[in-house]
Parts: sequence; structure tokens; C-alpha cells
Amino acid sequence: MALIVQKYGGTSVGDLDKIRNVAGRIAKTYDQGNNVVVILSAMGGVTDKLIDTAEKITEFPDKREMDVLLATGEQTTVALMAITLKSMGYKAHSILGHQAEVLTDNQAGKARILSIGATRIRKLLAHKQIVIVAGFQGADSKGHITTLGRGGSDTSAVAVASAIEADQCEIYTDVDGVYTADPNICSRARKLDKISYDEMLEMASLGAKVLQIRSVEFAMKYNVPIHVRSSFNEEEGTMVVNEDANMEKVIVSSVTHNKNEARITLLKIPDEPGIASKILSPISEAGIIVDIIIQNTRSGNMTDLTFTVSKTDFKAAMQISKQTASQINAGEVVGDENIAKISVIGVGMRSHSGVAAKMFATLAAENINILLISTSEIRISCIIEEKYTELAVRSLHTAFDLDEKK
Amino acid sequence: MALIVQKYGGTSVGDLDKIRNVAGRIAKTYDQGNNVVVILSAMGGVTDKLIDTAEKITEFPDKREMDVLLATGEQTTVALMAITLKSMGYKAHSILGHQAEVLTDNQAGKARILSIGATRIRKLLAHKQIVIVAGFQGADSKGHITTLGRGGSDTSAVAVASAIEADQCEIYTDVDGVYTADPNICSRARKLDKISYDEMLEMASLGAKVLQIRSVEFAMKYNVPIHVRSSFNEEEGTMVVNEDANMEKVIVSSVTHNKNEARITLLKIPDEPGIASKILSPISEAGIIVDIIIQNTRSGNMTDLTFTVSKTDFKAAMQISKQTASQINAGEVVGDENIAKISVIGVGMRSHSGVAAKMFATLAAENINILLISTSEIRISCIIEEKYTELAVRSLHTAFDLDEKK
Repeated sequence: MALIVQKYGGTSVGDLDKIRNVAGRIAKTYDQGNNVVVILSAMGGVTDKLIDTAEKITEFPDKREMDVLLATGEQTTVALMAITLKSMGYKAHSILGHQAEVLTDNQAGKARILSIGATRIRKLLAHKQIVIVAGFQGADSKGHITTLGRGGSDTSAVAVASAIEADQCEIYTDVDGVYTADPNICSRARKLDKISYDEMLEMASLGAKVLQIRSVEFAMKYNVPIHVRSSFNEEEGTMVVNEDANMEKVIVSSVTHNKNEARITLLKIPDEPGIASKILSPISEAGIIVDIIIQNTRSGNMTDLTFTVSKTDFKAAMQISKQTASQINAGEVVGDENIAKISVIGVGMRSHSGVAAKMFATLAAENINILLISTSEIRISCIIEEKYTELAVRSLHTAFDLDEKK
Repeated sequence: MALIVQKYGGTSVGDLDKIRNVAGRIAKTYDQGNNVVVILSAMGGVTDKLIDTAEKITEFPDKREMDVLLATGEQTTVALMAITLKSMGYKAHSILGHQAEVLTDNQAGKARILSIGATRIRKLLAHKQIVIVAGFQGADSKGHITTLGRGGSDTSAVAVASAIEADQCEIYTDVDGVYTADPNICSRARKLDKISYDEMLEMASLGAKVLQIRSVEFAMKYNVPIHVRSSFNEEEGTMVVNEDANMEKVIVSSVTHNKNEARITLLKIPDEPGIASKILSPISEAGIIVDIIIQNTRSGNMTDLTFTVSKTDFKAAMQISKQTASQINAGEVVGDENIAKISVIGVGMRSHSGVAAKMFATLAAENINILLISTSEIRISCIIEEKYTELAVRSLHTAFDLDEKK
């Protein structure tokens, strides 16, 4: 008998039939003698619909009230799921964020979980109830309803699993697990049996939508093993766990790509202290997140500065950069939307040299020019021309020995 | 400066335009220097839609979980209203039933309010906030979400008004106020300026849908004056208040009708102690509410028993009655769905005799046969053939001097 937390995303509970299907899975797990706590998202599309409604009232709806509004999405799903399970003869009980004592800070719309009391969850489990918890939501210290931002239910699940010391935290989604590359691009991509928290964090921050980045941080901090798997079949998925000795043997575990970046370069800027800050502060003040930043070394007292932003922020960032350029007497501002970021990730890089060299050689062999490079301890990213994305992913996937053995 | 509670029903907040219209009313009241607390229902049709969804899962959805589901309706409205008011530049703050400390018993789906703490409402008012409270919902002593049943937001409004000692409780609805008779039947019906709690209670229990009966009981118990008025115009509505000397001068204040009853008679039953209980207990055990009960005096050791139930319960009640009849060796069971209940109501009856006689004479003058009679201290009801309903209402309205003076 184990204590199992299961989280089902919006696509898994998208309509009453899917809710019934998920109820069957939950019931099966319970019938095997396990204690089960379920975390649910809003039904697919519901959150977007609520946001649309509020934005019909005003362009910038009050954030606190948006949280009150959005929290109804998960409340609806947990009630419908409990009704379904009870109609099947199971003991089930829905609880909302504040009832599960999910205490957050007071940042409406992107609150962070501070602690989870979980006394009510424990009491319900002691009565052999299946506990259905509304994900994505909590309450701050004053009792205001808060929500955790996109994908927040993942974080709810991991936090609850940590609070009740669950044996496993299963994240059910619409994909089979975590892959060595996007199977839509790379037919030889393999599902990973295991991946470390660090690698998963890199992947999440590179835009992989499998898990919310904060849920991975939380899992790593409290050492909660996550099992990412599909709610549409019975296959084993991918375990996200602590790094182990076995993993280090694999140097690179995945190749990721991201077409959602754009590059901006300010040419001929004065090479003086504080110049990067002068250029980038107005960008961040506009709420735009900058990814890679490279400042070239140049001869003389002039230099170039290049950075990347997401494509959706490109126009705004260009406009701001042009204003700054004229203020600091810089040269031209050049933008490029036709780029992609290709990354190789692996904890094995920590103990193996030559990964970067191999990556650059592989891309060079395909005549792919590298525009920018950025690295972390376990990741190397190259910005290339967008048209080479698929070729680069497939070449690197083969070069780093990730291809499925046929 | 006054402390005003306003309640808006589902039709008044049925879409975003109507919400904006109501926000304008609220803002106007606030701008006049008043403290304002607003109680809202779910948007028109939303509650029924949620019930439909749950009943697609199972015929009898779990009641506790239904309350969790239905509570999302009011939560949505209060958030949208607060967003609207804030977008107009007002200080507004939505709170849910449990946040307003609406403590109820644990009868899911028809909980009764035990107390209202209202410390949060008071604190928000002290900060000059417009407080938007989700009606219809509360929480029991264990923190479970509960709902108050159809029309429960009226009771929420009166209870909040009582807890914060409001100067006035305005109930906004889609009619102009309380009428002397249904204007759809009786063109000479007048809007009443004032009506006593007792009279309103009788009207509510006779099926008038202006106010939930428990809200009137609550208002009477705590002496909260209610102003029933329309959210679609600026007219004064009807004040529901304590009986005063002025009211007693008017003997009858309204004529009501109810076509939703059916009559069942068990003929030739043994006239012995406990026989009424033997017949009616199985009916009430089936959850069917009996309205009028009449046992005729007969010669010999046989009698007849007649009672009325709502039309929706007629078939079930007939079936049960036939079973009972065969068990107790009664004669025939006769049913009649084509009946109506006509009532005259007025606190003046307490001090005036002859009202019943006048009612019977008026009906007799129109050749309307009376099938059953039932009375309370301030009401006389007659069951008549359904086809005479409109004629009876109009005749009595004229006879008791209620017609609008042209």
C-alpha cells in the first residue's frame, strides 16, 4: 500500500467523458489498496474563456479579482470529479486550495507556495477517502484567494506530495513522457525512462511544456520523485528524480529547440562601464524577459551588444532599443526574427569535456552557422538560422547517440 | 450617509452589459456618500446549467459536491462585478460566503444560516471599499461549502444586513415590487408601497416568487426593513416592514393564486384514531409536501380524507395513496389536477370579521364552486376549479377594494 498523488491536466479532464475515464484510473489505483490524493486543473479551455470574459470588461482586469474568477475553473472540475467517483460508489471528497491549507504569498496571478498544512488531507485519507484537491489555487495569509500562474497545478501536486510525504507524484498529461527531442521533428526521438531534476529544469526553462518550472524546483528542493505519464494509455512515462551515478554515464540526455526567440543587436556602442545596464534596464522595466546576452570585444572604444527576447516581445524591444541607441549615440540597431535556439542538455557534461566541441563540429558539418552561444553547467545552447532547426536537432540527436535503436 | 445593502438577482446580472448597468447603480449609491455592501446571485441560467452538467454524470449527484459546484456561480459574478467597479475607478473587493463568515448548518443544498460574523465586511467598509459578497453560499462549522437553496441570495442579503446593522436592505429584481395581485391576470392590480412581514410570508409560502420565504422569516426575526424594487428602472418599490397601525385599516392587502396544486381524496376510510397519519406518513416519507388537509365528518364509521400536493408530486402521491387505500380497506382514490388555490391575505383580518363570508359570497356570485377551504390568522384560501382562476382573482380584487383608482 502506497500513498500516491496524481495530477491530471486540463486536456485529461476536458469533458465529462474524459472525467469519467480519469475517475476510472483513480478508482483502479485506489482498488489496488493505495491512498490516493488527486490534483486537478480546470477543464481544457475554461481558464482562457474566463480570461476572455474579464478582458471584455476591461483591458487590464484587477489581478486579485482575476484570481477569484479563475479559481472557479478548478473548483468546477474537483466537484464534477467527486460527483463522478461517488456515483461509482467510491468515497471521495473535493477540497479547494484554502481548505487544503495551501498558503501562498500575495502576488496575485503568480503566487508562490509558502507552505501546505494538509491536516485536512491527512484526516480525509485516514477515513479512506479519495481526496480531490483543486490545483492552481491557494490563499494568502489574509485569506485572499490566489492562483499560481500557468501550469500551477503541477506545483500544487508536487507541494501536496511533499507535505503529505507521498511515495510518488504522478503528473498525467497528453504526452507519454519526456523525450530526447521533439518527436514531431525527430522521428528517432526516444522517451526517457529517467531524467534528473537539473536536466528537467533546463528543459522547462527552454520552453518544454511538460512541467511548470516551479514544480520542478519544488520537487528538487523537497526531493519528490515525479512520474510524468499519459492519461490516455497505460505506458510507463518518465521519472524525474535526483541525479544518480548511472545518469552521469549518459553525457547528453536531450536535444531541445525553441523557435520563439528573436535577436536584437546594437552596433557600435561606447565601451564603458554600465553600458549594458543602460540598454537592458528599459527592456526589463517594460516587463520583457531577456534570454541570452552577449557583448563582443572590439578594437578601440566601441563594442556591440546582442540579446534575445521572445518573438512576442520583439517589436516592443526593438522600439525601446532604438530610443536607447539614440540616447547613448550608438550605431545601428539590427533585429532578426528568423532564428532558433538549439540546446543539448545533460548532467554528464559536468564530468565530461568536449561536448561543446562536438556540438559545434556537428553543426559545422551540416554547414549551419552559429550566431550566438550560451552555456550553463549542464547545457549548451546555440542560436542558429531558423530554417536549419530540424536539421540541427536531428544531426545532434544522432551525434550524441540518442537515436532509438531500431 | 447610510449603510446600505443591495442584492441583485440572476436576471439583473445576466450578462456583462447588465453587470455594467448594476455597477452604475452601485457606484451612484456610493457616490451619494453611502457605505455599500452588495450581494449577488449567479448570472441568470448559470445555476441550472451547472445542475444539468452534474445530472449528465448521475441522476442523483452527491449533495455536498453539488454545493461546491454551484458555489462557482456566485463566485464568478462577484469577481466580474469587482473587476467592473475597479475598472470604473472605484474601490471594490469581492468576498465569498466563507470569507464573509456566513456560518450555516450542514444541510447541503438547503443549509440554514446560523450566524454571520461579518468582521471582514466591517473592516473593508472602514477602508471605504464597496464590498461585493457572493450570495447563496456559506460554510458549515467544519469549513465545508454549503448553499442555501433556490432564492438563497435573498436570505444572504437580509442576514448580512442584520449582521452589520444596515439602514436598509434593497432587493433588486425583475419586477417593480409586490403587487395586490398578479398583473398578468388582473389589469387593475396595484403595486403596494408597504407590506408587513406576516403578509409577505403568507405570499411567499403561496408561491409568490418575489422573495425567498426564509429571507422574510429572517427579516422579521431581526427586524430588517426590505425594499423590493426593480434593477431596470428608478421607481420606488415595496417596503416589507413591521406591521403598523396604518396597515390594519386595510383588511385585505392582496389576492394570490396558485395553479400548481392537485387534489387527492380517499373515499370511505375507517373513521378511527391514527387513520390520517397512516395515509399521510408514507406521502411525507417520499419527500412530498402536503398543503391543505381536510377530513370530512360523515355518518357511520366511515369518513373521507382530502389533501393537496404540488402538481409535480401528483402521480407519485396517487400511487402511494392507492397502496395505502388497499392496506386500510378504504374505498376509491380520486385525483384532480385541474384545481387552483385562490387566497386573500391581510393583517387587517385579525381585527375584522366577515372577510371569509365576503370571499365566499363573491365567488358564489360568479357561480364558482368552492372545493376546499383553509385558513390562517391573516389568510383565507379556497380551492376552486382551475378554469375559474382569473375570474376569481379579478372578482375578489374588486370586492376587497384593491382595484387601482383610475
